[in-house]
Amino acid sequence: MSTDTSCIKKSRGRPKVFDREAALDKAMALFWKHGYEATSMAHLVEATGAKAPTLYAEFTNKEGMFKAVLDRYIARVTQQREACLYCEDRTLEQTLEDYLSLLAEMFTDKETPSGCFMICTSAVLAVSSEDISAMIKMRQSMQEATLVHFLEQRQQKGEIPATTSVRNLAKYLCCIIQGMSISAIENASYEELMQIVKTTLRLLPELKKN
Amino acid sequence: MSTDTSCIKKSRGRPKVFDREAALDKAMALFWKHGYEATSMAHLVEATGAKAPTLYAEFTNKEGMFKAVLDRYIARVTQQREACLYCEDRTLEQTLEDYLSLLAEMFTDKETPSGCFMICTSAVLAVSSEDISAMIKMRQSMQEATLVHFLEQRQQKGEIPATTSVRNLAKYLCCIIQGMSISAIENASYEELMQIVKTTLRLLPELKKN
Repeated sequence: MSTDTSCIKKSRGRPKVFDREAALDKAMALFWKHGYEATSMAHLVEATGAKAPTLYAEFTNKEGMFKAVLDRYIARVTQQREACLYCEDRTLEQTLEDYLSLLAEMFTDKETPSGCFMICTSAVLAVSSEDISAMIKMRQSMQEATLVHFLEQRQQKGEIPATTSVRNLAKYLCCIIQGMSISAIENASYEELMQIVKTTLRLLPELKKN
Repeated sequence: MSTDTSCIKKSRGRPKVFDREAALDKAMALFWKHGYEATSMAHLVEATGAKAPTLYAEFTNKEGMFKAVLDRYIARVTQQREACLYCEDRTLEQTLEDYLSLLAEMFTDKETPSGCFMICTSAVLAVSSEDISAMIKMRQSMQEATLVHFLEQRQQKGEIPATTSVRNLAKYLCCIIQGMSISAIENASYEELMQIVKTTLRLLPELKKN
C-alpha cells in the first residue's frame, strides 16, 4: 500500500497544480493552532505540501502568507455573518439571536480550533508584528462598523430609540462577542455560550435604551 | 562614563545576588509582549541579566520560568482584586463598580502591555503547550470561582434574588471582563472600557434576575 502511494506521489505525469485555496486552509489551521510567531515557513511548507519556492513566489514571505490567510478567513466569515444580519424580514431581536447563535456555533466548531481566528491571533500580536497587528485591528474595527451600520438601519426603522448611541451599543455587543471567543478557547461549550447569548437578548430592551 | 559602568559590572567584590523577583518581572514583561512561544531561554537570559545556569537552576526550563511568572502575576492581581471584592461596607453595585473599574485601569495601564496577562497568553496556548494551557485554564476558572463565592455571599445578604443562578451571573461577568481585555489589546482606551463598565452596571438590576 505504502509503495503504491509513494508511486503516485513521485509520478512524473502532469505537474501538480498548486492549489492556492487548499494551501491557505492548511496554513490557516497552523496559524490558528500555534499563533503567528510559532509558525515558521518550514512548518508552512510541510503542512501545505507545496514546495518552498512556490510559497515564496505566491506570498513573498510568512507575513504575506498570513495576510492571504486572514483575507480568506474574513471573506468566509463576513459572508456568513452579513447574510445573517441582512435578513430584512426578521426583527432586531431575532436577527441578533441568529447572529450571536451563529458565532457561538462558529467559536465551538469542532472542525476548527476554538474561538475566532482574528481574536486568537490579535491577542499576542500587539508588539511582535506591528504590520499584522495594525491589519487585524483594522479588520476588527470593520466588524464593529458592520454592527453600527446594521443598528443604524434598525434605528431608522424605529426598532431602537432615536436617542440611543448605536456606537456604544455596537461596542458593547463586540465586547460580549470577544468575551465569548475567549470563553470558547477556555473550554466553554456551545451550551455555555448560548447561555450568554440568552442573557444578552434578555437584556436587550434595557441595552437598547443607552 | 561607560568605562565606569563597565568597571562596576565587572567588579570582583561581593558576588551579585540573584534577585528572583526582579528577574520574574523582567520575564513577565517579555512573555506578555511576545507570548510564550516566541520567548526563548536566550531572550530570558538577556532580559533578566542573569546567567543561564542560574535561571536553569532556579526554574529548570522555560516552562518552569513561565509558571513562576504566572504565580507572581496571579498573587499580585488576586490580592488587589480580592481586596476590592471583600470591602464589606460597600453595596453589590458599588463593589462591582470598584472591581470592574480596577480592571479597566489595569487593562489600560501604560506600565504594562494592554489587557490581562492570562487572557493574552491563553488565547494562543490552546494547543502549543498543553501543560501551561491547563494551568491557565485552571487559574481562570479560579477567577470565576472567586466571583461565584462573592456573589453567593451577596445573595445570602439578600442583594441578589434567591432564585438567581449566581454561576450564570459570574459567567456573564467573566465574559464581559474577557471582552474588555481583548478590547484593550485592540486599542480601546480607559474611557471606552469605562463605558462598558457603566452599561454593565446599568443592566445589573436586570442581570441579577436571571
